[in-house]
Amino acid sequence: MRITLIGSGNVATHLGAAFKNAGHKIVQVYSPTMQNAALLAYHLGAEPIDDLANIDPDTGLFVIAVKDDAISGIAKQLSVYQKLIVHTSGATSISALEIFTTQSGVFYPLQTFSKTRELDFRQVPLCIEGASEEITNTLLTLAQTVSNNVYKVSSDQRKTLHLAAVFACNFPNYLYHISQQLLEQHDLQFDIIRPLIDETAQKVQQYLPADVQTGPAVRNDEKTMEAHLQLLNDNAEFQVIYKLLSQGIIKMEKWRQQHR
Amino acid sequence: MRITLIGSGNVATHLGAAFKNAGHKIVQVYSPTMQNAALLAYHLGAEPIDDLANIDPDTGLFVIAVKDDAISGIAKQLSVYQKLIVHTSGATSISALEIFTTQSGVFYPLQTFSKTRELDFRQVPLCIEGASEEITNTLLTLAQTVSNNVYKVSSDQRKTLHLAAVFACNFPNYLYHISQQLLEQHDLQFDIIRPLIDETAQKVQQYLPADVQTGPAVRNDEKTMEAHLQLLNDNAEFQVIYKLLSQGIIKMEKWRQQHR
Repeated sequence: MRITLIGSGNVATHLGAAFKNAGHKIVQVYSPTMQNAALLAYHLGAEPIDDLANIDPDTGLFVIAVKDDAISGIAKQLSVYQKLIVHTSGATSISALEIFTTQSGVFYPLQTFSKTRELDFRQVPLCIEGASEEITNTLLTLAQTVSNNVYKVSSDQRKTLHLAAVFACNFPNYLYHISQQLLEQHDLQFDIIRPLIDETAQKVQQYLPADVQTGPAVRNDEKTMEAHLQLLNDNAEFQVIYKLLSQGIIKMEKWRQQHR
Repeated sequence: MRITLIGSGNVATHLGAAFKNAGHKIVQVYSPTMQNAALLAYHLGAEPIDDLANIDPDTGLFVIAVKDDAISGIAKQLSVYQKLIVHTSGATSISALEIFTTQSGVFYPLQTFSKTRELDFRQVPLCIEGASEEITNTLLTLAQTVSNNVYKVSSDQRKTLHLAAVFACNFPNYLYHISQQLLEQHDLQFDIIRPLIDETAQKVQQYLPADVQTGPAVRNDEKTMEAHLQLLNDNAEFQVIYKLLSQGIIKMEKWRQQHR
């Protein structure tokens, strides 16, 4: 397939490489900053452009991978070419494109990307939606050329998915940060706790989280929780988080015990 | 080394297997329930006992791997044999043993264990403390026979470490549970989000969490956060957690920007 990338950030970079590796032709890479367009275009064997007026209309698909706020403005400009247009945003409805064109869809990779970190794109879940059944099928077929984890997900479901991803990724990462801060305050290296973080994530690849919950809260071990809160006396904010999440775990476990 | 295991739970099971694989002799396994003692003792080629009166004094080390509340009572009974005694608890000071014997130490594996899940013990961080320098050195040497990640950690540091582990393991697992609940409520499988959980934990094996924070809060993307809170309208508890952790991330990022 001939594909045009709008954007040169983390998603465009990883998606572009995956398309190219699967044998697709990346026609152009657009970025308002020519240097960014050129860098990614070079890697993908594509033409860099920094002005949408220079779009090559000989393409099969426009992939908009830009900040959420910018999607609609770009979609409007691209709609004149009457080609298929998808965005890659978890938080944006397909309707952001549909107001400009019926040939629209969503191609949302549910993963946390960094430009500097390699990852196996075939493991990345791709969440697909199309404005018509035909478009959905076209996009599902394309998705399967780059990933083994392809899902059909409606705009409504994708909203929830995006929220669930905050709880599964952004918030745990912040808790890792708190952990690292506590260690640093007591001259302990973050290295010591890294294997625990890894194993905690590995366990839920196999089990449901509620079934492998460990720690003082799930045992309702009040003595240990009290000691932990004491240790956090100098940090009111971490203390509030500790209390709130412990209460949540205690409640989850009570519910589990009653519904066994 | 000749080693006696007191306990037959997750820690005793994994530690016992690691000692045996490293060529140490497990003399006896004690559990108040003979069936549990027998099962683990069978795997370790040891003698099972369910009465501390039957302890074989011909051992070099008693490893107490039982619930925190039971450590002191057992240490008192074992102290008559005048052999080295360690406990394996993150939340318990070495003084719980020192009141009964000077030959005491701590051998704390910082990992989340399940009996049914295999793991590479050589990656498990072992946190070592001894009542004397000689004991510390003996335990460090022993620890290095089973793990590549051996740390000398004081009782004070271990308290913090145990607390940090709650933030790095128990709380993230609970957030995975919330994520899974949200998906289930909208007919989405937990499978779809498992690769994201994995990659989030993998990223911080290499980077510090604050440096790889992603999501709406770190971008201070108020529109997306508002939409997420709306979605959580039916779940006041998850909403409170969402607000609190988002505020924490916003504050962390502000601090980072100012201290660059």
